Amino acid sequence: MDFAYSPKVQELRERVTAFMDAYVYPAEAVFERQVAEGDRWQPTAIMEELKAKARAEGLWNLFLPESELGAGLSNLEYAPLAEIMGRSLLGPEPFNCSAPDTGNMEVLVRYGSEAHKQRWLEPLLRGEIRSAFAMTEPDVASSDATNMAARAERDGDEWVINGRKWWTSGACDPRCKILIFMGLSNPDGPRHQQHSMILVPADTPGVKIVRPLPVFGYDDAPHGHAEVLFDNVRVPYENVLLGEGRGFEIAQGRLGPGRIHHCMRSIGMAERALELMCKRSVARTAFGRPLARLGGNIDKIADSRMEIDMARLLTLKAAYMMDTAGNKVAKSEIAQIKVVAPNVALRVIDRAIQIHGGAGVSGDFPLAYMYAMQRTLRLADGPDEVHRAAIGKYEIGKYVPRELLRSSRHEA
Amino acid sequence: MDFAYSPKVQELRERVTAFMDAYVYPAEAVFERQVAEGDRWQPTAIMEELKAKARAEGLWNLFLPESELGAGLSNLEYAPLAEIMGRSLLGPEPFNCSAPDTGNMEVLVRYGSEAHKQRWLEPLLRGEIRSAFAMTEPDVASSDATNMAARAERDGDEWVINGRKWWTSGACDPRCKILIFMGLSNPDGPRHQQHSMILVPADTPGVKIVRPLPVFGYDDAPHGHAEVLFDNVRVPYENVLLGEGRGFEIAQGRLGPGRIHHCMRSIGMAERALELMCKRSVARTAFGRPLARLGGNIDKIADSRMEIDMARLLTLKAAYMMDTAGNKVAKSEIAQIKVVAPNVALRVIDRAIQIHGGAGVSGDFPLAYMYAMQRTLRLADGPDEVHRAAIGKYEIGKYVPRELLRSSRHEA
Amino acid sequence: MDFAYSPKVQELRERVTAFMDAYVYPAEAVFERQVAEGDRWQPTAIMEELKAKARAEGLWNLFLPESELGAGLSNLEYAPLAEIMGRSLLGPEPFNCSAPDTGNMEVLVRYGSEAHKQRWLEPLLRGEIRSAFAMTEPDVASSDATNMAARAERDGDEWVINGRKWWTSGACDPRCKILIFMGLSNPDGPRHQQHSMILVPADTPGVKIVRPLPVFGYDDAPHGHAEVLFDNVRVPYENVLLGEGRGFEIAQGRLGPGRIHHCMRSIGMAERALELMCKRSVARTAFGRPLARLGGNIDKIADSRMEIDMARLLTLKAAYMMDTAGNKVAKSEIAQIKVVAPNVALRVIDRAIQIHGGAGVSGDFPLAYMYAMQRTLRLADGPDEVHRAAIGKYEIGKYVPRELLRSSRHEA
Amino acid sequence: MDFAYSPKVQELRERVTAFMDAYVYPAEAVFERQVAEGDRWQPTAIMEELKAKARAEGLWNLFLPESELGAGLSNLEYAPLAEIMGRSLLGPEPFNCSAPDTGNMEVLVRYGSEAHKQRWLEPLLRGEIRSAFAMTEPDVASSDATNMAARAERDGDEWVINGRKWWTSGACDPRCKILIFMGLSNPDGPRHQQHSMILVPADTPGVKIVRPLPVFGYDDAPHGHAEVLFDNVRVPYENVLLGEGRGFEIAQGRLGPGRIHHCMRSIGMAERALELMCKRSVARTAFGRPLARLGGNIDKIADSRMEIDMARLLTLKAAYMMDTAGNKVAKSEIAQIKVVAPNVALRVIDRAIQIHGGAGVSGDFPLAYMYAMQRTLRLADGPDEVHRAAIGKYEIGKYVPRELLRSSRHEA
Repeated sequence: MDFAYSPKVQELRERVTAFMDAYVYPAEAVFERQVAEGDRWQPTAIMEELKAKARAEGLWNLFLPESELGAGLSNLEYAPLAEIMGRSLLGPEPFNCSAPDTGNMEVLVRYGSEAHKQRWLEPLLRGEIRSAFAMTEPDVASSDATNMAARAERDGDEWVINGRKWWTSGACDPRCKILIFMGLSNPDGPRHQQHSMILVPADTPGVKIVRPLPVFGYDDAPHGHAEVLFDNVRVPYENVLLGEGRGFEIAQGRLGPGRIHHCMRSIGMAERALELMCKRSVARTAFGRPLARLGGNIDKIADSRMEIDMARLLTLKAAYMMDTAGNKVAKSEIAQIKVVAPNVALRVIDRAIQIHGGAGVSGDFPLAYMYAMQRTLRLADGPDEVHRAAIGKYEIGKYVPRELLRSSRHEA
Repeated sequence: MDFAYSPKVQELRERVTAFMDAYVYPAEAVFERQVAEGDRWQPTAIMEELKAKARAEGLWNLFLPESELGAGLSNLEYAPLAEIMGRSLLGPEPFNCSAPDTGNMEVLVRYGSEAHKQRWLEPLLRGEIRSAFAMTEPDVASSDATNMAARAERDGDEWVINGRKWWTSGACDPRCKILIFMGLSNPDGPRHQQHSMILVPADTPGVKIVRPLPVFGYDDAPHGHAEVLFDNVRVPYENVLLGEGRGFEIAQGRLGPGRIHHCMRSIGMAERALELMCKRSVARTAFGRPLARLGGNIDKIADSRMEIDMARLLTLKAAYMMDTAGNKVAKSEIAQIKVVAPNVALRVIDRAIQIHGGAGVSGDFPLAYMYAMQRTLRLADGPDEVHRAAIGKYEIGKYVPRELLRSSRHEA
Repeated sequence: MDFAYSPKVQELRERVTAFMDAYVYPAEAVFERQVAEGDRWQPTAIMEELKAKARAEGLWNLFLPESELGAGLSNLEYAPLAEIMGRSLLGPEPFNCSAPDTGNMEVLVRYGSEAHKQRWLEPLLRGEIRSAFAMTEPDVASSDATNMAARAERDGDEWVINGRKWWTSGACDPRCKILIFMGLSNPDGPRHQQHSMILVPADTPGVKIVRPLPVFGYDDAPHGHAEVLFDNVRVPYENVLLGEGRGFEIAQGRLGPGRIHHCMRSIGMAERALELMCKRSVARTAFGRPLARLGGNIDKIADSRMEIDMARLLTLKAAYMMDTAGNKVAKSEIAQIKVVAPNVALRVIDRAIQIHGGAGVSGDFPLAYMYAMQRTLRLADGPDEVHRAAIGKYEIGKYVPRELLRSSRHEA
Repeated sequence: MDFAYSPKVQELRERVTAFMDAYVYPAEAVFERQVAEGDRWQPTAIMEELKAKARAEGLWNLFLPESELGAGLSNLEYAPLAEIMGRSLLGPEPFNCSAPDTGNMEVLVRYGSEAHKQRWLEPLLRGEIRSAFAMTEPDVASSDATNMAARAERDGDEWVINGRKWWTSGACDPRCKILIFMGLSNPDGPRHQQHSMILVPADTPGVKIVRPLPVFGYDDAPHGHAEVLFDNVRVPYENVLLGEGRGFEIAQGRLGPGRIHHCMRSIGMAERALELMCKRSVARTAFGRPLARLGGNIDKIADSRMEIDMARLLTLKAAYMMDTAGNKVAKSEIAQIKVVAPNVALRVIDRAIQIHGGAGVSGDFPLAYMYAMQRTLRLADGPDEVHRAAIGKYEIGKYVPRELLRSSRHEA
């Protein structure tokens, strides 16, 4: 469990940091302006420029563990890079490392057929197209993923897909060419073998982007979080990934590395918020003293440092366990970071907002946006409550026979 | 300290509730649509209709204690009505009871000349115009109000005003016709006698609305929170309220009742969030049980009930003390509710968001918007920290001679 | 809901406060010394002196609402007196107002026969004897009171009682002459009609005090918290209170006023802790400034003030509701204060300990003892969790038919 | 930063665990009985037996990094052993690894003369005598160590020592033969060079144990926490350690490893509390279900697991930094764990108490005692507040020149 950076990782950290400093942070305001000025739902020129630059520098597809297609980094090695990228809301995309593409590419690498890879994985790896993941549904409590009710019914050589999904992030972007749909295909199977994942090209007739969903007033354009209606959508039977009823099997594999990424980005954001908080606390004066020396402000900075450092160590531990023992053994740790990282980030960002006064809730600093984004992460991929229940159950399982605990994850 | 509702108050509560049910809640979606469809920064038709209806029903200007112009309600009597109005984000305006107009009208009632009243108070009371309050500045830590640096210099019969203000709420609305500017007029006076409040008509040359400030991603149109540049703005000398250097004196008087209003609206919002949380918790099912019966959800509902009820009682106590002993004696209590109410509301709304899942952060429920709005109230009119310091100092003052505590409020 | 003190209450407040100042606080060290020096488990001379003085001053049996035997005070009227008494760990007993005697006397007043009253109530009211309440059992989860397994079996004209109880507070004191035993008498009845309350004289053969239970190292001598073995204890059949199987009915009635008393004493303790905290914060200097002006200390004082004031208001509201609408209607409020008051007291006391440094955890200040005592109140008469579940369920019950919620209180 | 256990450490972990299981846990009740039955302030036979066994097995003096006298373990290597020992309140002493002896031995190794070592270090290493550390004073705020006012004045070849110390842990034990006194020797020196550390044999005339201080209700006999009066105590001049005025220099060195030990023991205690909590949660049933499946209990278990794991990782990181970069570079990390570990332990233990009901606050489980012990660690060696201020200041120091921050540690 060696958390020191290897020379390779250290070198990449320096290069990614330099890239962020030189290009990404300065691009934040440009990006915002380009989105505001044109059609919000078209890709921005600045992002394409950043991607070209990063690719030219070889800072490209750094995720993708266990694959020749990526940079050959383990989760533990990639984690500190994800943290740096996460410091900017623009961060991961220039490096072709942004969600949900990373997770989708991993799914294609592991579970896609050769045809799937050629058709979708390759342009994704080249950053030419983007992708989306259609799982959550507006009409059921998605905390229990087995509630998913959108249907995929086989009709000869085709799937016929019907249902409504939302929080299909990225689907509003015209570059999004492929959706991974997950839905009920085998309603008579065992509880976790009723759903399949199926590739649905974005331009298939019947795929309707109903609306972008705002997050605390932010539309996150041009990426966006779509409500998508699947209305008699027909795709070839072979578009199913891995096999019928194996959606949950894929989901388990998909979510592990993605959680490391998400959590490290949360930590990166928290670090940036802490940096802003420290700077503001010495830049402004009230009652004759810098804010840092008033009341409990210094304690808030200290608490933030402690919480961030602990969250990072826990995430690195989870990454190490995934690398060495696999997702299954690391199950509790992965659930733990899923709870810890966004909650820590939210607390740190909230303190930073407070010390910035009115500026903190405005658009003049990235804090309010970061807050909104992190708040969704207490819900996305399962709410805190589901993960806490899993952690607690795992813990109790050390002392009682597994059978005594009920089968469902949450209702511990 | 009788918190039971008098028959008059009870009757008003029922009428305001009925009005909310019949007209205001159903208007929420209409309002949102009208803002989205037209020019965001123009008043909506629906709001004018609501105002006409409320005025016709005599539910108008219910605030304004100690004045014949209002409904003759004490702060304690008005408080429960403010709570009901606060349940909707549209709530107070139909009744001509919305901030910052209420505070501004009170200032005019108490400190305005007859000319001021005729010119500005009367159309405000009729709901024909709106107003703004320009105090906070972007370039200084406004937690220490004595930092205010925008200048008002006397030049013969006129004031010449220069400086930059922000969070001048309502100034983006074309109905806003008058600003109360507070700035540095007497820099050589004692610390709390250097600033004056001056009436500045919105159409005075040199008054420039620089931009609306978003709160999280919300622009709060058509009301809006403006950054305002005062560029050699000239107004008659007699526009000063109460007298030169007496700005803080007015501010103290202005803020008391306004805090009761704000806090009761926060409590109203929290109540609505709790109601939504309860309803959602029984409407959705996961792992075979309604959400209400999973994990610690019931505890969150219970905590919310306790926190809301305590915050309400504390606010009523502050209102009672203001009514009976005056703002000065109620100083600690007013500071207490300023800290308690928005923090309670934020906690309750956050729990409600969590139980709503993705819907909670979206625009499908008012929760995310409420959260953003309440978050600003931990900063507006002084951040939590300043009020905590005042409360703590007051407490310690019971045991040590006042002289031993430093003069500044915050640096305890 | 008038929380102002009536002249009668105000006069009593002043007299009780004067008594505390003159006699009780100065007696604290004396009491501690008398307990330490002699046989810990014998009553102290100082307490008997205090009782004589208070009785002589007419400050006696101030509890007992709705009875001619008491001072004729409502719960709302008695509450502020309980707060003052609660400030000292010696506080309530001098006034014959200490638990569990108060609750037991109320039970006898309401549910005792004339013979019971003559035999036990009268000497209790005169402060000649004390009493205990034997309900909690070591071998079952007492959070679910229906778990109670100690048996009371009828054998002709007698009850034969067997079983083990603990936390039978006061039973170690030789003045304790009567125990109210609650146990399983009718195992075949409906869930809440299986248990009876039976009067058991302390000297009945078979009643064995197994040991005193310490609380965080404190034995609370000479009162003590006893583990009691009932070994074939025989008492007359007529010792049953109210009737067979009606134990829960009595328990409901018994607990209401007792909770007001307990909570107000918690608040009194919190007030004293806050007072000590304030005084210490200005008496000690570090890094060149009084503790009050270091870091976030002032915030802790402010938070304590806010939390105490809110807890008091909520408790007064519960008392008011009990007085005017009865225990049943006030059910949620009574549960609320049961959660709120000890938790607030613990937080305030913990902060006071921290500001006292090492002195805070020692015996030189009453803080550590107060902490230990308050900590038990998060468990006694049902743990927080049970009360939170009841509150939450009550809240949800506003929106769904009662039948949809399960019957058990906790498993919401 | 490799936190995996080396084979040597893994082997020691297994042996220490086996020893704890075989001898230490079973001895807990024996120890308690022996203390209760005899003279509380005499050493127990059971402890001497445990020491003999552990020494015979070579599990002796495992602390002492960078010294041939110990087991040759780095801080990072010793840390997991300290955690295991910390699980029992008897834990460290059988292995001759208990505070304050460990810190005192380290001081003697590093700063003692050959004569000091021969006279005091050797019997300490053999476990024949014990020692105490006299620093904290009752009459000043010890959070600011420069407040220390007890005097050591040179009189020819001797020091004359006068003053009052308290929380001199272990000084009540008759085996305690040597005290390290820290006091004001050079009042005219620079702020951190005014105090010296001086060896004072416990039997020197004028050394008076005034009383043992209880912690909550525990006296911690026979170890005890003494108030010690130094009344014209004379010791040879050469008893000064390192040199006049160099007390703080030693203190800095002394505290680093001790904090790792303390924190790992806190984590061990938290682990044991969590284990007890899990076991209880499945052993007891209420409302028809095991406690683990009621309300938010599972969340409390999950939170405990996350908090413990993060605290452990942070402590290991601090240990690693001390080993590789030294105490000075690790300063912020050492302060961080000093805040984190006892607070985490307190939260976990408190949750465990709650789930144990009344048993949790009693002596039937080690929980209440653990709580009391951990509570002192938020004060000992500097209160949380001082460490938070140091952490915060270090953080801000990344962005502003050091000179802009005031010199004092706490008043940030």
